[in-house]
Amino acid sequence: MSASTETWGAPPAEWTRSHLLGLETLSKEEITLLLDTAERFRTEILEDPRGTGRKIPLLAGRTIVNLFFENSTRTKTSFGLAGRRLGADVVEFAAATSSLSKGETIIDTAQNILAMGVDGVVIRHSCPGTPHILSKRLEHCSVLNAGDGTHEHPTQALLDILTIRRRFGRIEGLTVALVGDIAHSRTARSDIYGLKKLGAKVIVCGPSTLVSQGWRELGVEYSYSLDAILPRVDVFNLLRIQFERQVVRPFPSIREYALLYAMNAQRLAACKKDVLIIAPGPINRGVEITPEVADGPQSAILDQVTNGVAVRMAALWLTLTAGQKNSK
Amino acid sequence: MSASTETWGAPPAEWTRSHLLGLETLSKEEITLLLDTAERFRTEILEDPRGTGRKIPLLAGRTIVNLFFENSTRTKTSFGLAGRRLGADVVEFAAATSSLSKGETIIDTAQNILAMGVDGVVIRHSCPGTPHILSKRLEHCSVLNAGDGTHEHPTQALLDILTIRRRFGRIEGLTVALVGDIAHSRTARSDIYGLKKLGAKVIVCGPSTLVSQGWRELGVEYSYSLDAILPRVDVFNLLRIQFERQVVRPFPSIREYALLYAMNAQRLAACKKDVLIIAPGPINRGVEITPEVADGPQSAILDQVTNGVAVRMAALWLTLTAGQKNSK
Amino acid sequence: MSASTETWGAPPAEWTRSHLLGLETLSKEEITLLLDTAERFRTEILEDPRGTGRKIPLLAGRTIVNLFFENSTRTKTSFGLAGRRLGADVVEFAAATSSLSKGETIIDTAQNILAMGVDGVVIRHSCPGTPHILSKRLEHCSVLNAGDGTHEHPTQALLDILTIRRRFGRIEGLTVALVGDIAHSRTARSDIYGLKKLGAKVIVCGPSTLVSQGWRELGVEYSYSLDAILPRVDVFNLLRIQFERQVVRPFPSIREYALLYAMNAQRLAACKKDVLIIAPGPINRGVEITPEVADGPQSAILDQVTNGVAVRMAALWLTLTAGQKNSK
Repeated sequence: MSASTETWGAPPAEWTRSHLLGLETLSKEEITLLLDTAERFRTEILEDPRGTGRKIPLLAGRTIVNLFFENSTRTKTSFGLAGRRLGADVVEFAAATSSLSKGETIIDTAQNILAMGVDGVVIRHSCPGTPHILSKRLEHCSVLNAGDGTHEHPTQALLDILTIRRRFGRIEGLTVALVGDIAHSRTARSDIYGLKKLGAKVIVCGPSTLVSQGWRELGVEYSYSLDAILPRVDVFNLLRIQFERQVVRPFPSIREYALLYAMNAQRLAACKKDVLIIAPGPINRGVEITPEVADGPQSAILDQVTNGVAVRMAALWLTLTAGQKNSK
Repeated sequence: MSASTETWGAPPAEWTRSHLLGLETLSKEEITLLLDTAERFRTEILEDPRGTGRKIPLLAGRTIVNLFFENSTRTKTSFGLAGRRLGADVVEFAAATSSLSKGETIIDTAQNILAMGVDGVVIRHSCPGTPHILSKRLEHCSVLNAGDGTHEHPTQALLDILTIRRRFGRIEGLTVALVGDIAHSRTARSDIYGLKKLGAKVIVCGPSTLVSQGWRELGVEYSYSLDAILPRVDVFNLLRIQFERQVVRPFPSIREYALLYAMNAQRLAACKKDVLIIAPGPINRGVEITPEVADGPQSAILDQVTNGVAVRMAALWLTLTAGQKNSK
Repeated sequence: MSASTETWGAPPAEWTRSHLLGLETLSKEEITLLLDTAERFRTEILEDPRGTGRKIPLLAGRTIVNLFFENSTRTKTSFGLAGRRLGADVVEFAAATSSLSKGETIIDTAQNILAMGVDGVVIRHSCPGTPHILSKRLEHCSVLNAGDGTHEHPTQALLDILTIRRRFGRIEGLTVALVGDIAHSRTARSDIYGLKKLGAKVIVCGPSTLVSQGWRELGVEYSYSLDAILPRVDVFNLLRIQFERQVVRPFPSIREYALLYAMNAQRLAACKKDVLIIAPGPINRGVEITPEVADGPQSAILDQVTNGVAVRMAALWLTLTAGQKNSK
């Protein structure tokens, strides 16, 4: 293997957190350390040319539980792969068939799992703050937030930021537009925290029914016209319309939304030449983005997915080793 | 690692059973051997202080299938973790989406799984006796009963007994009360078999609608009043009201049940000072037990969960190596 | 271990395909190479007498995803076990709870999984041709067809053929009858391609409503009477009536079907003495086959299951190493 547990080195002493709950409370230095570590996992492990060296057993003997109370494909699979590439055992917890249906509280469920000797819990839950509550009740166990309601989704933001940094070599001074369903997006919130701390300018852009006014205090610019901002944006993050979260449809028709906000070839032509298009996915082709843009050279949508595994390897390694200083 | 396959030693020759179907047919010596082995797994493997030594590959190369036909969180996860900590591959079999829905019999399903080269099957099924039938039809494969209808749940009883033995240093001479839903409880039945063989006195306590009269012949005492037995009991095992198994509600209201049978702070004050409170979970907070008792110092509810992994490691190791004497 | 990665040898240079999409496009030599490789896995790995040597880490460090869009027990479990016995990480993808329900296309789902760094995708889908489309869109990733609608199911046919070859020592010159639900069977189609290429004579036999006329051009013989062909057939493959695929019932009653086409003791007596009975399962006992035949000495139904793991190990090893010639 190109990298082994011997040559990789010890966990960085600067990292002291056992949990990854959100980007709001992280410092610029902590976010940078996460990104630097993910960059190493990406280039030294995931891109190992021989195919057989894409694992490094830094977490051998550890057990991680995927505790997803909302449906998920990519985040759950990504965390699962990240854990396995670090040599950990990953246990999938199917919330739908669990004891919660027998009347148990989520704290009791989590404490039970922990008592079985688990080192890390990756949790997604529709209720904001659930990972924070768990992190206070679970001792000797790392909690990683994989999305809590409309609050935060830190690893998604970290992979967005890593993808941007890999393209431009920096975050400082860039203008990043978050387009679309900002009201329902935990990714937008985490993106704003992370991008602002690293020195980017952030514009939120979408129909007024989808853009929360409360975020003005975070220091972001507002725009209701995508066309107006095209020439001055370095990165567009096209958030998906989350039909499954909406009670009332916030625009007259999908057709109208696409007419005003879809990134298509015509709009792309009005952008900077080196503009970067990212999207958290799963994308609605023809709604937020047209196929020729999604599959075109400015798009880094699939690159984001690869970076997601690297970011989650970094997050798992840093938090699980920070919480167990008495380990080897 | 503090323990390795080299220093751990060979499987004990006194153990000869390939299957763990229930405690009714085990001798006092066999139950003690299971408990002693579990105690070793708990202290030498699960409590390894470095976090990285919590695996011992005694079953490396073996494959175990989790065949759960009833919903389960803790038992399935616990068996899965136990198998993985022994280095085995654990395959989850989702019964709901299986060929059984295409008209296949359970024997055919099991024989098919076995023909794929499986060394152990952990089965939960609503029909009493299913593990016994399988054990007669499957050659060269261990069958472990993870609960068969209202019949037995041997590993749950073993973890209860291990938890008691770790607290008191013995079982002989103790008075153990099983409180609540005795009629629907396979755990109660296995507890009675195991505790009686090891020399404990057992009291079953609950409303008359929940206490099976048939168990008088097992030599247990009956009580319909929890308050009457509080001062002379060493261990209370608070069985959960299994609302999901009941056709007719066996008491007027949950409120009345809790009034008469919930273990609360007031009742705890009338107990022996060193009384031990256990519960198989998932607990209904406020029904069988109040939060201050569940989370208090007399409770060993979470300790039971840890012991569950140790007991299942012992059961898997002893049965799978007993059935394969021609292995290394 | 009786076999190790050192003594096993390099992947055969004659095999050059990264995908296994069907038997239609394979040469006689390629099918024979798959069977020979599976035979080695069966005898040298799966039948290792010590139980601990049934793994060989030829695909250590590789990741395989099980992408099943139709329910499956045996095929999914069999591929999962085959991958694990080769030392690969196997990730189960639960299609029902996936992003497809959020409107994502299957190509996007697959590309996302691939971007996470996956080496092989095992796919079952109700739409014929899905594996072929994926294989054209996924670079550096092997695609294995685990059943695409009513089209092909190559590993099922390979395990049928391996089972026949192990019994008779050859395929050339044998007469093989496929009985029953030929219209809905992808297994029948793959069986015909494979058996014909290896020199067998194939008879398709069933009620006219279940036998597709289009297969005459593949050079198979037709028969509407099972009794008429009993004395001259070497192998009967009893295809299951797939009630779940039928819109209109193609015969008056199950009783009548069984009367005319079930393999029972009386019919078996009219067969050749060394006749071989196989069935893809899950079997409908009393419909295509009676219990005394299914469990009798002429039946190789469970042997097929064991061969299935061997065939899938061969398919995974050959395709994944063919596609990654730059690996060690």
